[in-house]
Amino acid sequence: MDLYEMGRKAQEASRTLALTDEKSKNLILLAIAHDLQEEKEKIMEANKKDLEQGKANGLSTALLDRLALNAERIAGMAKGVRDIATLPDPTGRILAEINRPNGLVIRKVSVPLGVIGVIFEARPNVTSDAAALCLKAGNAVILRGGKEAIHSNTAIVETMRQAVRKTGMSPDIIQLVTDTSRESAAAMMTCKQYLDLLIPRGGAGLIRTVVEQASVPVIETGTGNCHIYVDRAADLAKAISIVYNAKTSRPSVCNAAESLLLHKDIAENALSAIKEHLDTKGVILHGDEESRKFADGILPAEESDWEKEYSDYEMSIKVVESLEDAISHIHRYGTGHSECIITENLTTAETFLNAVDAAAVYVNASTRFTDGGEFGYGAEIGISTQKLHARGPIGLPELNTYKFKIYGEGQIRS
Amino acid sequence: MDLYEMGRKAQEASRTLALTDEKSKNLILLAIAHDLQEEKEKIMEANKKDLEQGKANGLSTALLDRLALNAERIAGMAKGVRDIATLPDPTGRILAEINRPNGLVIRKVSVPLGVIGVIFEARPNVTSDAAALCLKAGNAVILRGGKEAIHSNTAIVETMRQAVRKTGMSPDIIQLVTDTSRESAAAMMTCKQYLDLLIPRGGAGLIRTVVEQASVPVIETGTGNCHIYVDRAADLAKAISIVYNAKTSRPSVCNAAESLLLHKDIAENALSAIKEHLDTKGVILHGDEESRKFADGILPAEESDWEKEYSDYEMSIKVVESLEDAISHIHRYGTGHSECIITENLTTAETFLNAVDAAAVYVNASTRFTDGGEFGYGAEIGISTQKLHARGPIGLPELNTYKFKIYGEGQIRS
Repeated sequence: MDLYEMGRKAQEASRTLALTDEKSKNLILLAIAHDLQEEKEKIMEANKKDLEQGKANGLSTALLDRLALNAERIAGMAKGVRDIATLPDPTGRILAEINRPNGLVIRKVSVPLGVIGVIFEARPNVTSDAAALCLKAGNAVILRGGKEAIHSNTAIVETMRQAVRKTGMSPDIIQLVTDTSRESAAAMMTCKQYLDLLIPRGGAGLIRTVVEQASVPVIETGTGNCHIYVDRAADLAKAISIVYNAKTSRPSVCNAAESLLLHKDIAENALSAIKEHLDTKGVILHGDEESRKFADGILPAEESDWEKEYSDYEMSIKVVESLEDAISHIHRYGTGHSECIITENLTTAETFLNAVDAAAVYVNASTRFTDGGEFGYGAEIGISTQKLHARGPIGLPELNTYKFKIYGEGQIRS
Repeated sequence: MDLYEMGRKAQEASRTLALTDEKSKNLILLAIAHDLQEEKEKIMEANKKDLEQGKANGLSTALLDRLALNAERIAGMAKGVRDIATLPDPTGRILAEINRPNGLVIRKVSVPLGVIGVIFEARPNVTSDAAALCLKAGNAVILRGGKEAIHSNTAIVETMRQAVRKTGMSPDIIQLVTDTSRESAAAMMTCKQYLDLLIPRGGAGLIRTVVEQASVPVIETGTGNCHIYVDRAADLAKAISIVYNAKTSRPSVCNAAESLLLHKDIAENALSAIKEHLDTKGVILHGDEESRKFADGILPAEESDWEKEYSDYEMSIKVVESLEDAISHIHRYGTGHSECIITENLTTAETFLNAVDAAAVYVNASTRFTDGGEFGYGAEIGISTQKLHARGPIGLPELNTYKFKIYGEGQIRS
């Protein structure tokens, strides 16, 4: 179907959805969760086609695993939707009330954005997740997944639409772009007439393309070149366990640490203790000249290492002269995602928290906490690394905008 | 100078400014206000060159008037800057505090955006206004005015920079792009590395170009095809005075009304009374067939009239069947700026307020109130018609973003 036609239908449906109360939205979500489980055989059958095609096309085992759905994973998707139903409705909150001397009452009220486009890659569970979050926040959604998951996504969206239809709501609040060509992605990026927001979820290449080409407002997500700076006044035990956790607990995600900065006064001791732990996971280290003096088996870092999001058991290491030196390295190479200092010095900690320009700045805690769930949001649609509208985890409130409702009694402007 | 070099300097200076307290920022603003007045002769001399050049190039009287500076207007600019100094500092506010079961304390704190680019046209007073707002919110600014005002803008920015320098702050918090070619505007639109936000202020053409071409996040401002719907239950006296005010008090601005929708049951009476008032200002009316039956001297409206922001003594008129009809006309042709209903029926009013998707939705008040000053913001840098980050007047809080400061004691993620 033509994207403009999809957009028009989504916009129309979104206007009804925006006026739908919380209870009714929750009933729709529960209907979706129910039908996802009810139709699990159909979904798994569609998924089988994607897996066969993926194998034939030589997808890696890791990608095939991300793509695979089984009864347990589908139950997880349904549970995810049910969990979103329990979260507080972000719409209709009075964010401010201004009473003007002329008698005007101006109320700033949270309202849905309208129609949200989501462009994503491999994982088919994003389909139900993104749709449920958009719906709970009162928005229609147009989803465009990758071609690897097209059969699975089609089955999932058909199931969700059928569930929505049964509740009496227009199924056009959830639509899937089944054309997975570059052209369909490009069309979404410029469909300003109908899309109020576009969220890319996926690799750095996808995100860069969307940011460069979109005229639709975009929230940039996900690239994380996160640093941990071990200060002169660090507690070494905390440094060891935080670096180990931030690097190795799940190296493929955006909040994993990629670079270790060590204050020169404690570099030698800290490095050998930290390296011993990282070695147990076979983490490959790329260090500057100074750090390579303190330990064996560290590869020489190239300029490109400082910029790299390894997303793997790999890390860069640099010895810095001072706190300022650490901050300026972070500003030069960081992506504004999550940055951490390990220190027992409160003044140093505050300086770092204030000076470092990133979505999440940590003192003595793992960067891995930058996550909607860990922030207590219940769910998120991604981590924003831009500064406009949403920064850090994008939860339900960030899927809303506001409007001003202004109550007059005939006031005119002089 | 190369824009990247300007951006680099602005970013560096912005990091110092972001850590500067309110008192020091106010002192800088007062120094700027002082020097603007002190250097008024120099500024007026530069302005004379622009005016001469403008006359030679055949600029219209209206444009020349907008361009002209005199002692009074410069005093107004200085007062504007001083007023901004008295406004509350938007930075450093704790927007939320989350205490997690694992002991993490997560503080959501307002912080400056960083470096803001402003592309604007004719009026040189925008130069000091935009710079002062950005500065008070803790941001560096890169300004690019039109070529018609290049001498005035250069003199104003030099004066401001000199004032900033005297306070010990880097003058690079305020910079002017003196190259007024298309290429310099295009360079700003893609200078993602250094610009955190780009605000276009000017005509529809400029704004469209920026929205389409920019990879830097943009806040779209200013296009206002605003409607007034006179409901069946309208108080006719209110309708007359509000329509008259919204159309004729300043037709060139974006919050002026452009289109009048009349419920069929009251159309005849309302139209003749409203028209009588609009006639006193010679407002040209373009009406649909129905409306033309009720009064003489109404031109037939073409499809393009419904989309038009006349910005002049000109208005389109349509008779509608119902409230729903009015809302769907507004959704089809409106620009999401300001929309108004005149009604004494509270239920109808609430339906309109909830259903209409626009930055400001009015009951019984003139659309001309959509303005930072009228909202009590003190000052604004424009009116946003997009839904992301800022909607409606963009005041100081909207020139901030937030970050999460996270306090741990060694927490790692399991």
